[in-house]
Amino acid sequence: MEMDTHLHHEEQHLRSSDLITDIVIGMSDGLTVPFALAAGLSGAVSSTGIVVIAGIAEICAGSIAMGLGGYLAGKTEQDHYSAEVKREFYEVDNLRDREIQETKEFFASIGLSRQLQEQATAEVAKDKEQWVNFMMKYELGLDKPDPKRATKSALNIGVSYIVGGLVPLSPYFFVDHPVNGLKISAALTLVCLYVFGWLKSKVTGVNPWGGALRVMLIGAVAAGAAFGVARLFGP
Amino acid sequence: MEMDTHLHHEEQHLRSSDLITDIVIGMSDGLTVPFALAAGLSGAVSSTGIVVIAGIAEICAGSIAMGLGGYLAGKTEQDHYSAEVKREFYEVDNLRDREIQETKEFFASIGLSRQLQEQATAEVAKDKEQWVNFMMKYELGLDKPDPKRATKSALNIGVSYIVGGLVPLSPYFFVDHPVNGLKISAALTLVCLYVFGWLKSKVTGVNPWGGALRVMLIGAVAAGAAFGVARLFGP
Repeated sequence: MEMDTHLHHEEQHLRSSDLITDIVIGMSDGLTVPFALAAGLSGAVSSTGIVVIAGIAEICAGSIAMGLGGYLAGKTEQDHYSAEVKREFYEVDNLRDREIQETKEFFASIGLSRQLQEQATAEVAKDKEQWVNFMMKYELGLDKPDPKRATKSALNIGVSYIVGGLVPLSPYFFVDHPVNGLKISAALTLVCLYVFGWLKSKVTGVNPWGGALRVMLIGAVAAGAAFGVARLFGP
Repeated sequence: MEMDTHLHHEEQHLRSSDLITDIVIGMSDGLTVPFALAAGLSGAVSSTGIVVIAGIAEICAGSIAMGLGGYLAGKTEQDHYSAEVKREFYEVDNLRDREIQETKEFFASIGLSRQLQEQATAEVAKDKEQWVNFMMKYELGLDKPDPKRATKSALNIGVSYIVGGLVPLSPYFFVDHPVNGLKISAALTLVCLYVFGWLKSKVTGVNPWGGALRVMLIGAVAAGAAFGVARLFGP
């Protein structure tokens, strides 16, 4: 009972932060790439108009690739899971000896004696549905995917990418020369990357100060490299 | 014995395709976003030079975000795993009753009788290391991360992103007007996206024809949207 409450609590904790996780992932990615692209262009062109158009095109492309890509990946995962469930039911019916053997191997792998391997396998295999669930989870390592979750998650990440991408781009709307835009954009974006890196680390359970620094550094390195390379190839 | 050979074979199969998986993931992403960015800019600017510079800046930014991001994520995963192993060893020593209870709950969840739950738990808990491995894998669902794999994978994906990104960009090096570049770029990239979508589906175990179409469609939608939006905001 105590365990049940414990598990239930964990699950709740996870659920409430799902949205936050999506937002933070989408935003920290959305901050990074458009920021670096804008920085790169700032070193090579003299009109903020081009930076803005390229930035908007990138935000479009990136959010669709992440959002639609994530959505279709979710659908694919579901199809894959359903196909594997069918296959396991078929195997349990038609290749019973092999499945019995595989179940015993599982119990052997966690250190049970030969006698307990036999007994535990017999009990698990008593109920066909229970047996298939067991094989899915512990032989194949597949968790039942939540169909709604994938769709929602993809949408949340896509929208957050757009919002995140508008942060590094916004200064370019208001200044005349790209290099001036870059100065404000860099200050604004690095602060935001640090904050979102901190939150991202919190939700993924990593040391938040180190994680924040890492996320900010990736953004800075990407922007610096893009700036340097674009200047090299620039007019 | 037969099972051992079977598992060994699967593992080998997986290992030999790790590199292919990385390349395919990096390339299909590298094809999509730079392609869409270049398409967007082609609708809004009149110089291929700007498309090339923006494309190079994006490839820089995207490959660093994916490669360095993946590398650091791999490091983080290792730290997380080590921390959890330590915690489990602590709990096995100091919160033995709770861990015994959790192990029993696992055996109850797969359908073992009360008597077998007790016996199986006693056998698993006999060896401390074996017990911790069991808890890591089946209570926490954590697999021991391969340190070399994460680094290599990040590098492979980053480099593949660069190679993939150069495909949609290459036509712009040779033509005068962006719209002409776009025509060749679209034909070339959509064919490549189809081929890489097919390979990606093969390695991830999805229907390859459907998967190929999906990957190609994401690229086409992203490019179309970027083209439309950039033209809207363009000069």
